[in-house]
Amino acid sequence: MNPEQRFANLYGFEVPAPPQPRGAYRAAVIHGDVLYVSGQTPRVGSEPRFQGRLGHDMGVDEGRAAARLALANALAAVRGEIGDLARIEHVIQLVGYVQCVPEFTQQTEVVDGASAALLEVLGEAGRHARTAVGVTSLPRGVAVELALQVAVRTR
Amino acid sequence: MNPEQRFANLYGFEVPAPPQPRGAYRAAVIHGDVLYVSGQTPRVGSEPRFQGRLGHDMGVDEGRAAARLALANALAAVRGEIGDLARIEHVIQLVGYVQCVPEFTQQTEVVDGASAALLEVLGEAGRHARTAVGVTSLPRGVAVELALQVAVRTR
Amino acid sequence: MNPEQRFANLYGFEVPAPPQPRGAYRAAVIHGDVLYVSGQTPRVGSEPRFQGRLGHDMGVDEGRAAARLALANALAAVRGEIGDLARIEHVIQLVGYVQCVPEFTQQTEVVDGASAALLEVLGEAGRHARTAVGVTSLPRGVAVELALQVAVRTR
Repeated sequence: MNPEQRFANLYGFEVPAPPQPRGAYRAAVIHGDVLYVSGQTPRVGSEPRFQGRLGHDMGVDEGRAAARLALANALAAVRGEIGDLARIEHVIQLVGYVQCVPEFTQQTEVVDGASAALLEVLGEAGRHARTAVGVTSLPRGVAVELALQVAVRTR
Repeated sequence: MNPEQRFANLYGFEVPAPPQPRGAYRAAVIHGDVLYVSGQTPRVGSEPRFQGRLGHDMGVDEGRAAARLALANALAAVRGEIGDLARIEHVIQLVGYVQCVPEFTQQTEVVDGASAALLEVLGEAGRHARTAVGVTSLPRGVAVELALQVAVRTR
Repeated sequence: MNPEQRFANLYGFEVPAPPQPRGAYRAAVIHGDVLYVSGQTPRVGSEPRFQGRLGHDMGVDEGRAAARLALANALAAVRGEIGDLARIEHVIQLVGYVQCVPEFTQQTEVVDGASAALLEVLGEAGRHARTAVGVTSLPRGVAVELALQVAVRTR
């Protein structure tokens, strides 16, 4: 199976169209052989999903699902730029921002929903450096935002 | 017009002297052909401006102005390192941190003040990948902090 | 003295074993000659230290000590990947996340604890670009999390 097929198996839908930037920026920018993906949120098309705050009105399992959906959009942005997920050489890093209350301390478990999905779709090439932090609020009130950097095969 | 002239047209002042680091770090570091700019805030010289919190004592328009001023300082740091904004090949990415209350969800609109300024000063070379998040607090109580990465012409 | 010796002089202990990732990621990933270190927290082995919130139950001096310990773990991750701190060509950037209350505005002073340690261990090669922000909460309730990128000698 190729990454697109593993994506469809994992998510139950094909890699979607790349996300449309909501402002004066791009969904992804390539420099050298590194692709920088803009912060992605859990949305379906232009509709935000998983709006909520960990430790207040959302639990860890739901937070992990939010991270997984945000990751689907990040992979959609990658595919929109390079055409084919098989051109990913390896994932470099993932920064995960989790909307939460001050008492919430399981950012790691939430963002791991996206990390596990990267491994399922890309195999060992999906293993990355990662930072997970808890933030006050995110655009449109979603629970998770992810910033991804991947190395791509340039031929 | 060159980028320095477009900067002066947009801001009404020349590109300022590069910001002085407040600690054991540098305003910008270059590696290969990528310039990494330290987090920049809205200040004039050493004086912070736009101190406040979005959704509490500051509105979106003022937040956008804060982002624009922080961007001016980021461009000043770039120029301090490479001498001339025309040596920017293209902007890679911008991370925007917005000080806000938990209910505030328009981080995208605020940071877009900086993104729009990048396009005005640099044209299409200014179009970048972007991440915008809402944070609890920022140094000296300012409303916005920006981290910028640009690709530079090395000849 | 080499960096390992300066580390031992500064910290009073040898560079520890590399941190174990708590999830589906790696402690550090190298791409080209850039090493990306996963977010590191102040812990000793698997035990978190410096759990608390700046401006609430922790002061700046303690926050600086937390940043210093997190930096020790980041350097441990670097050494785990490249074998020897002397292979660091120079530090590129450091992002410091400080758990704090909204009124706290000295993130710069806290993260500078790590920046100063980088200079002590690595000399001028340790001088870096830096971003410091205040966040709602961090994994396991620690006060500081650091994300580090270093350029390494590839021969």
